[in-house]
Amino acid sequence: MALSDRQRLDWLRLIRSESIGPRSFRSLMNRFGGAAAALDALPGLARQAERDIRICPAGEAEREFEGLARLGGRFIALGETEYPVPLQAIDSAPPLLAVLGRAEVLQRPGVALVGSRNASAAGMKFTARLARELGEADFIVVSGLARGIDTAAHEASLETGTVAVLAGGLDEIYPPQNIPLARRILERGALVSEMPLGWVARARDFPRRNRLVSGLSLGTVVVEAARRSGSLITARFANEQGRLVFAVPGSPLDPRAEGGNHLIREGATLCAEAAHVIEALQPLRQRELALSPAPRLMREAPGEPAPEAMWDELDLPEIEPAPGYARHEDGFELQPPSSLPTTAPADSGRRVLDLLGPTPIALDDLVRASGLPAGEVGHVLVELELTGAIRRHPGGTLSRLAP
Amino acid sequence: MALSDRQRLDWLRLIRSESIGPRSFRSLMNRFGGAAAALDALPGLARQAERDIRICPAGEAEREFEGLARLGGRFIALGETEYPVPLQAIDSAPPLLAVLGRAEVLQRPGVALVGSRNASAAGMKFTARLARELGEADFIVVSGLARGIDTAAHEASLETGTVAVLAGGLDEIYPPQNIPLARRILERGALVSEMPLGWVARARDFPRRNRLVSGLSLGTVVVEAARRSGSLITARFANEQGRLVFAVPGSPLDPRAEGGNHLIREGATLCAEAAHVIEALQPLRQRELALSPAPRLMREAPGEPAPEAMWDELDLPEIEPAPGYARHEDGFELQPPSSLPTTAPADSGRRVLDLLGPTPIALDDLVRASGLPAGEVGHVLVELELTGAIRRHPGGTLSRLAP
Repeated sequence: MALSDRQRLDWLRLIRSESIGPRSFRSLMNRFGGAAAALDALPGLARQAERDIRICPAGEAEREFEGLARLGGRFIALGETEYPVPLQAIDSAPPLLAVLGRAEVLQRPGVALVGSRNASAAGMKFTARLARELGEADFIVVSGLARGIDTAAHEASLETGTVAVLAGGLDEIYPPQNIPLARRILERGALVSEMPLGWVARARDFPRRNRLVSGLSLGTVVVEAARRSGSLITARFANEQGRLVFAVPGSPLDPRAEGGNHLIREGATLCAEAAHVIEALQPLRQRELALSPAPRLMREAPGEPAPEAMWDELDLPEIEPAPGYARHEDGFELQPPSSLPTTAPADSGRRVLDLLGPTPIALDDLVRASGLPAGEVGHVLVELELTGAIRRHPGGTLSRLAP
Repeated sequence: MALSDRQRLDWLRLIRSESIGPRSFRSLMNRFGGAAAALDALPGLARQAERDIRICPAGEAEREFEGLARLGGRFIALGETEYPVPLQAIDSAPPLLAVLGRAEVLQRPGVALVGSRNASAAGMKFTARLARELGEADFIVVSGLARGIDTAAHEASLETGTVAVLAGGLDEIYPPQNIPLARRILERGALVSEMPLGWVARARDFPRRNRLVSGLSLGTVVVEAARRSGSLITARFANEQGRLVFAVPGSPLDPRAEGGNHLIREGATLCAEAAHVIEALQPLRQRELALSPAPRLMREAPGEPAPEAMWDELDLPEIEPAPGYARHEDGFELQPPSSLPTTAPADSGRRVLDLLGPTPIALDDLVRASGLPAGEVGHVLVELELTGAIRRHPGGTLSRLAP
């Protein structure tokens, strides 16, 4: 199946109309037989509901098509042969997936690697090893382009193929320091998003995006995660989608291991090496991705809120408004474009400190993980050492002192 | 039920006779109706089997009774009201359990805490916390008096009650440096053994003993254990005995976490805090210890050798012959007593190094964990620092550098 240009435009208008999400899109399509008929019916439905629903004008949808084409990307529609099969199997599969880069990687089986933005260097080292070995075993690595674990996962699978799912539009890479990484991903992998071009991710868009990270993958591995974190949301989505959930264990004395240990207690598979993931996913891969919402793998604690209810309670990244958007009480709103804001200087000290844990790591690894110039890292380390926050060891390794 | 003195003597003679273990003891008792009749029948059975079986003479058994009484201990027989109910439920329950100290602690529900002899200071800290909290929750802590995790478990539960199960006789404390700890255990806890007085544990006696550690307990917690270790044998016994198995997770980059992570993958319950053990055991405690060999909790890997077959392959402690014993090819044999050997000087450097891991710990904790004089630890630390093996941190903490 492939949509005609006209159908594709109608699909985009429908999904970009006010109050229409993937689920209501699907029910409108089922009720009216197609997007054009649904668009015709929408004003009447809105009147019945005594609401005023903004319908996306054809010109606006056309401009989005053109803008995406100019970036070098395109839309893949639900039901088209190129649409990723595992994603198609989830309830809330986006009708149109904007893809930049090599769309063909989406045909290969994927594993999601997710974890803390404030990861330890040891956690990032383990993630890199895992991503490399999964890539060698012909899995694509799916993640969210965030700092920390996501970054380590993408970087270690650039050669074998990696997919970054964005919470904003494909032209709104977040965080900005990962724009170079995003460019390198495009060479052999892909960036995907369900959001319009120009959309700057709000806090609530990140957990929403996470369902695509798990949905694109046969399994999700949580590497380092605090007890309340977006990674645990991804794990919960994976579970609800009938996918395997893996978690990397850690010492009970390490707060960054709390989320993973908690998941394992809830029924996630303990992952201490890539083989644990590969072995578990092998049967799924052989079944040619014949996925269906499987029985729940994890216990649900009674009274625990559903993912949606948890979204707003999460410790999600604080996002500055992008150019053309202003901060409002509960998110961002489009405003007349003004001059480009200057990027706030990165808090390099914080970044370097967050990368360090009790396990000593080499300066080279630290510089690489930080993404900062070596000179700047050196400068920062001197300050951190003076405050007693870190320690240099013989042989050039560094560790963070227990607070 | 309580045995008469005469019965008790016959029981001891029977179990101390050649080739008679707890299982053959039980089948002889069932066949002949009592120990006296079984002893009478033994020579005939031996002739039938064309074997020469040494039967323990009455005088030897009497001397063991007297020796145990002189130590302040006594035997509790299987079936007597004081015999620990959970132990009674296992296949190979010893007919007579030699007990020193407060036998009444054996009436309280127990949790076994076991782990590596070469534990990290972090592992011992976690063990101590766990043992303390289990004690506060009215569990006795059962372990094997070994160095490392066992020692930390006993020490932290001295006040609330702890039981050390010895692999040798009650007068043959191993390791010798834990003799002072054994004395303190007696104040509110107990030492138990199924072996004769004067018996110095051979390598194979340790795994055999481990079935009693798990058998005395409602659950077994493995704290830090390498992939092939005696602690995993204890966990396997616990599983076979229908008891709960818990394991403490750790980073996949930490070799001391391999055993625990492996157990969790096999189905053991992840333990990151005492509550995880207490909650799981609460229902068992309420059922008044009504234990029975329950269904297997852990998967058995196909082709994996049974515990017995693994005993000799294990990395078990190297034991020096005790006074009066000489080393033979496969164990120790009694020899005419000679002068007491001098204890070989402890390798303090190795001991201190083994206690350190990547997580910095305080010097005080290190000295305490090492059991060495503070001055000696200080001397050792200077050497280790010079070789670059460890690092001092501001605030007086120390850590080991990754090799």
